[in-house]
Amino acid sequence: MNLEQEIRSRAKRVDTAIEAVLEGIGVQLSEPMKYHTLSGGKRVRPFLCLLSCEISGGNSDKAVNAASALELAHSFTLVHDDIMDEDDLRRGRESLWKKYGTSIAINTGDGLFSLSYGEILKTDADSEILLRITKEFSKSIIKMCEGQSLDLDFEIRETVSFEEYIEMSALKTGAFLEASVTIGAVLGGASDAQLEALSKYSKNWGLAFQLWDDFIDFSSDSTGKTKNSDIKRGKKTSIVCHALSNLELEDKKRLLEILNTSSNETSDDSVSEAVSLLEKSSSIKFVKEKAEAFLSEAKSALDIFPDSEAKNILLEFADYCIKRKL
Amino acid sequence: MNLEQEIRSRAKRVDTAIEAVLEGIGVQLSEPMKYHTLSGGKRVRPFLCLLSCEISGGNSDKAVNAASALELAHSFTLVHDDIMDEDDLRRGRESLWKKYGTSIAINTGDGLFSLSYGEILKTDADSEILLRITKEFSKSIIKMCEGQSLDLDFEIRETVSFEEYIEMSALKTGAFLEASVTIGAVLGGASDAQLEALSKYSKNWGLAFQLWDDFIDFSSDSTGKTKNSDIKRGKKTSIVCHALSNLELEDKKRLLEILNTSSNETSDDSVSEAVSLLEKSSSIKFVKEKAEAFLSEAKSALDIFPDSEAKNILLEFADYCIKRKL
Repeated sequence: MNLEQEIRSRAKRVDTAIEAVLEGIGVQLSEPMKYHTLSGGKRVRPFLCLLSCEISGGNSDKAVNAASALELAHSFTLVHDDIMDEDDLRRGRESLWKKYGTSIAINTGDGLFSLSYGEILKTDADSEILLRITKEFSKSIIKMCEGQSLDLDFEIRETVSFEEYIEMSALKTGAFLEASVTIGAVLGGASDAQLEALSKYSKNWGLAFQLWDDFIDFSSDSTGKTKNSDIKRGKKTSIVCHALSNLELEDKKRLLEILNTSSNETSDDSVSEAVSLLEKSSSIKFVKEKAEAFLSEAKSALDIFPDSEAKNILLEFADYCIKRKL
Repeated sequence: MNLEQEIRSRAKRVDTAIEAVLEGIGVQLSEPMKYHTLSGGKRVRPFLCLLSCEISGGNSDKAVNAASALELAHSFTLVHDDIMDEDDLRRGRESLWKKYGTSIAINTGDGLFSLSYGEILKTDADSEILLRITKEFSKSIIKMCEGQSLDLDFEIRETVSFEEYIEMSALKTGAFLEASVTIGAVLGGASDAQLEALSKYSKNWGLAFQLWDDFIDFSSDSTGKTKNSDIKRGKKTSIVCHALSNLELEDKKRLLEILNTSSNETSDDSVSEAVSLLEKSSSIKFVKEKAEAFLSEAKSALDIFPDSEAKNILLEFADYCIKRKL
């Protein structure tokens, strides 16, 4: 099995469906939508949805509309997040708001969100099933917005605990990953136990992915350099949250001082000092080990499924995404 | 029948439902939601939804969730529109982005949008009916975003025809008003002919309301003053669109020049000159007469319904909203 090939082939099915949706939209709205949405990406949520349908014994053709809906909704959040975070770049080129301005970006996000419901409601399934997946979809997006509101709140708070960070992350990204597998599994005819297993897989994998993402910012790349970009940006990552709860008062004050210095004024010495503080509180190690534990939990959740190609893919996928940056 | 009392009593039922929804949301998100959503308003869309249920012979208690969903979605568009239009005020106090900042406002709008689906999906109806109204809801919001994309495009285009303006308005506000009556009517058990009649009522009323809104900016108030605020803001209203298609080249150029002058630099003389140009092309009169014709069409669409309290309310409501500014 070639995992990258498995990912690409499913992404293609979803991209074809999304292209068809965007064809039906007026050009003023579809042009920025295409710019953002058809610019690559591994389509993680659709992938999880289609595979969850397959591992539950279903034909994933039935889940393509739902998978596309998940990607459209994910796109909407990226478009709006880039405005909120003032991120200039997305997938190596100008983010939507940077290219088209904030107004068009807000409306494009709203449009993608609207289209996501149009798309999930096209799913060819019994009414009861269709309502069930639409409700799952809806609930997860509400949680995502609640998570985002916590994340925005964290920016202005001095201290956030590691537990609060996990709660935020579970809402902001975990709930939607859980919806991705649940929707696929429901369409595939999964049993309650299988649904629960996939839910556990997705939640743990989502946390593992998030924590690993925070960790690799401190690990050296092939040239031996570390990025440490989160320190420069003053981000309250899981590592920083852990440190803020575990450092002595003086060290905590100094760490906050460095984090609160604006990006381009943070000297290399200050960055090194911050890293030392994070090492003093064992926060980098703590988060790395947590990520590995969540990953292990994710994989073992699939034990109840009999061996299958879909199971192998999901197991390999869990590792793959952690080891590489998506 | 006391129309204002009829409006208030229905608004209250919807507000109670919305308050209950917001109670279930984390405080970081619910606080800005409450600030925006529970700050008054006539609840036009819920009102149309509930009345459409009643005129079709249904019990409007069944439509309260859907009516609340319509208001939540409408709220989301207002929150985002205020950011896009840089409007500082909403219902006499600071708009949400002005009070809480753009990031929180974007996310609050997204949250309200999410909640609207959660709410419509709570409707106690057969699965088929529930899917039907959810699909109507979804389609109308996609159209709304398409309308908004046209509206944003109009801002940077030199000329927009009256017909293009009508097309934009039908998408931006008409489609959602149509969904409001359709959803209420479907829940009330309306026949196809009744559905069509209510759809015609809402579409024509929506256009009448929009055109009248553009017209009253040029009519004198009780003190004899005219606002002419749209001229100062350089807005491409229906009146301006009509004039741009009907004035001679020199007059058109001059009108655009005045419109393109920034608000606080537009002299009273320039405003008077612009008004003269709009009178020269008969655009103010044209739009007023169009508004009256749409209003008349809206009301006659209800002819197929037998006499009832709900019918009387909808007829009186049509006039009421045109004569007063909502």
